[in-house]
This record gives sequence, C-alpha cells and structure tokens, in this order.
Amino acid sequence: MCQLLGLNANTPTDIAFSFTGLAERATEHKDGFGIAFFEGPGLRCFVDDRSARDSPVAEMVKRFPVRSEHIVAHIRKATQGRVALQNTHPFVRELWGRYWVFAHNGDLKGFCPKLHAAFRPVGETDSERAFCWLMQELAKNHARLPDVPALTDTLRELAAPIAKHGSFNFLMSHGDALWAHASTSLHWLVREHPFGAARLQDADVTVDFAQHTTPSDRVALIATEPLTRDEPWQAIAPGELIAFAQGRPL
Amino acid sequence: MCQLLGLNANTPTDIAFSFTGLAERATEHKDGFGIAFFEGPGLRCFVDDRSARDSPVAEMVKRFPVRSEHIVAHIRKATQGRVALQNTHPFVRELWGRYWVFAHNGDLKGFCPKLHAAFRPVGETDSERAFCWLMQELAKNHARLPDVPALTDTLRELAAPIAKHGSFNFLMSHGDALWAHASTSLHWLVREHPFGAARLQDADVTVDFAQHTTPSDRVALIATEPLTRDEPWQAIAPGELIAFAQGRPL
Repeated sequence: MCQLLGLNANTPTDIAFSFTGLAERATEHKDGFGIAFFEGPGLRCFVDDRSARDSPVAEMVKRFPVRSEHIVAHIRKATQGRVALQNTHPFVRELWGRYWVFAHNGDLKGFCPKLHAAFRPVGETDSERAFCWLMQELAKNHARLPDVPALTDTLRELAAPIAKHGSFNFLMSHGDALWAHASTSLHWLVREHPFGAARLQDADVTVDFAQHTTPSDRVALIATEPLTRDEPWQAIAPGELIAFAQGRPL
Repeated sequence: MCQLLGLNANTPTDIAFSFTGLAERATEHKDGFGIAFFEGPGLRCFVDDRSARDSPVAEMVKRFPVRSEHIVAHIRKATQGRVALQNTHPFVRELWGRYWVFAHNGDLKGFCPKLHAAFRPVGETDSERAFCWLMQELAKNHARLPDVPALTDTLRELAAPIAKHGSFNFLMSHGDALWAHASTSLHWLVREHPFGAARLQDADVTVDFAQHTTPSDRVALIATEPLTRDEPWQAIAPGELIAFAQGRPL
C-alpha cells in the first residue's frame, strides 16, 4: 500500500516538516513518489520513480520551501502497474480550465469502466483509471466549474461505486478545495492558534509551530497514518468524503 | 521574446550542458522557465515562475542528470499574461492516452479561436490558447493516435493559420517525436559520430562529447539561437515544420 499526504491551508504554507516525516516511510514505500503544489490555478507537480529517501527531486522538495494552500503528496508501493514515471502519483488532468490532481492509496479489483471521453490513462494503474473515470463523469455532470459543495456532492456519488472494487483512499484537489475519501485508512488534523510543538512519528524532529505562524493561520493535514505523536489526529470513516477549504473541513 | 530549447536523441541523453547555456540567457528572459523530460510515455515537467538563473528548481535540473530521448525547455520573457506559474511553459495535456508538451516563443495578436472541446487554457497566454486549439483540432482530425508522418502533416496544416497572427516558433512532443515550427528564429543541429568538442556561446564552458558518447549515439538539438560557437547550426525557414525522431530530422 502507498501513503498519502495532503495539506489545505488558509494561507500559503510549506510542507517541509510533514514531507520529511512521509519520506521516512519510503523505505517500505520505495517505488516512486510525487508531490503537487497549487499556486492559485497554477501547479507544480514533481514526480520521481525513485524512492523519496534517495531521490534528488525529493531532496529539493525538502530544502526548497514551496508555499501553497493545496498540496497533494504520495509515496508509492506498487500493487498494479510497474515502477515507472507514468505510474507515479499524483496524476494531473485539465478540466474547465483548471488543473486537477489525484493520488490514491489502495487497490481496485476489476474496475475497468468505459472511458469514452477526453480522459485516458497514460500508465497502467487502477488509480489513474479511476481518476480518468472521475474526470469523465464530473464533466458529464456539470457543464462548467461548479462550486465546492456541488462538486463534493458529485464526488461522493461517484466515489461510492468505485469503492466497491476494493480500497479507495484518495486525495484530490483543483486548487480551491481538497477532497479526502477514506476506505481503509486516512486521518486528518487541524492546526490552529494557539499553536504548539509537534514531534514526527518517524524521525527525531520536533517543530514548534508557534515560531512559524501567525494567530490567524489555519492548516488541515490529511495522512494515511498520523504523522506526529502529540496531536489529535482523527480517522475518516470508511466511505466518508470530506472537503477541506481554508484549512478546515467544510 | 522567450528562448526555446529542444532535444531529440536515439538514446536517453542528458541536457545539462545545453541547459546551462540556456539558463545564462535568463538575465533577460527572467519571467520563469520550464523543462519537460519524457521517459517512455511518462513525463517529468519542472516549472518555476522565477528566473532560471536563481531558481532552486533550475539548480536541481543542472545537477540532476535526467536522461531522456525527448526534452522541451523554455525560458520566458512575458509578452502576454503576467508572471505566474499557470503562464509558464511548457504546457501539458493528455490526448489518446499520451502526454503532449508544448512551448512557444513569439507573440500572437488576436488569436481567439473557439475552444469548444476538452482543452481549455488555465492561464492567460496566447501560447496556451494556441496549444489548446492544436490539441482540439488534432483530436478532431484523428480518431486515435496516428503515426508520426500523419501527425506531422496535420500539425503543418494547423500551424499555418495560427502563424498568420504573429510569430509562432514552437516545440511540441508526445514522446515519440519532437516537432519544431519556425516563424522568426529557430535553429537545429545534429551531433553524431565522430563527436568533437563544443563551447557554449553564453558561458565559458567546453564539453568534449567524444568522452560522453558511444559511436552509435545521435542527438538533435533545437534552439532559438545557436547555443555553441563551433558547430554547424542551421536555421529553420519561416513557416517550416520539422519532425525529429531518433536524433535526426525525418
């Protein structure tokens, strides 16, 4: 299985601390990694088919403090599709003049939907197939970009039939909101004033967020497993889809 | 105006030497840069809205020897669209289950085609608009991915009406071939056995390619202006479109 990490904030925020924790888990999840940062509607998406522990791209991500309100990261342990760049999450497509990113943790069996429209997989994963179908069906359901509550309703309807095929934990964003759907394991946390210190689960690193924030900052983090030891992470229930915007669940 | 750099090779090749020369030109062309590398159908695309001279992403590209058979790079001097990530070339879309990348040097006046299909610009540039129209019309002209000669014929027909709107030098690739269209300035060169040494126009750097190649290697380079002083660069004629594959023009 893979590991997901998402960030949604009310102000551009860097993810270096959390990404460092995620990258520590890349000993087991060694089949590539990717991270996508929105800056307004613009997008940076870094992918590598090497492990996040020794990839020069991951090294740059840890040192280069990209600040963003919407971040989706993934480290991969291949279940379907070989280790190759085209099978590395997050996947990106354009719809309604916006970029959409998608990363999946899980394994879908026998999900081979009709892809008759403008979205086709480039690689061989069940994940990219699911994303292409979500994009196709979103495009069918709405003539133009709907607001976040309407998108949330549609995504909730679309996720359910896919989830019947196996485990379908995913993160998705178009730069205005970040959606998290749980099937087996996904946890979230809001950091806000008064900020304290937190210690990574997987590395001997502690950050005192009070030193790096202003009282109005608010950040939601979503991860496969809690990334820190001393914060109140909550599990997302199986089948639940949560939309995050402005650093909190809607 | 911007600067383009393309590479097409018959074996995965790194572009560090040529990219170093291009980045030197980023004093004037300071409004962002981007570089896309195909690895089979997979794609890495690095973009930054900072200058290639001081971007940490550019620094990583210079040091991390990504080897690829198809590379498209661009440094930007903004003419249309503000300095922002969504206006940074190369642009990427998916069609027929393949990624397509596009970078443009020039300025199109009054090119506002009907974009009624699945490809919409995210940013505000004439360049991304032209790319979306090319993708839309390619999709209309062919039901599935055609071979490179057929794509070349279609692209030649489609480029002509766009080029009437101004200067339209572009590079485009889908990982099987690289197309170069000239309108005002684009030059190309093939490096093959016997390899010699070359000195960058813009920096005091010399490489002896004989030390880094095997006799069967062949590399085509395409650039707005010749990048080296002592090699036989050829100009592409205005209105001409050349398809490169296996390190040479078809």
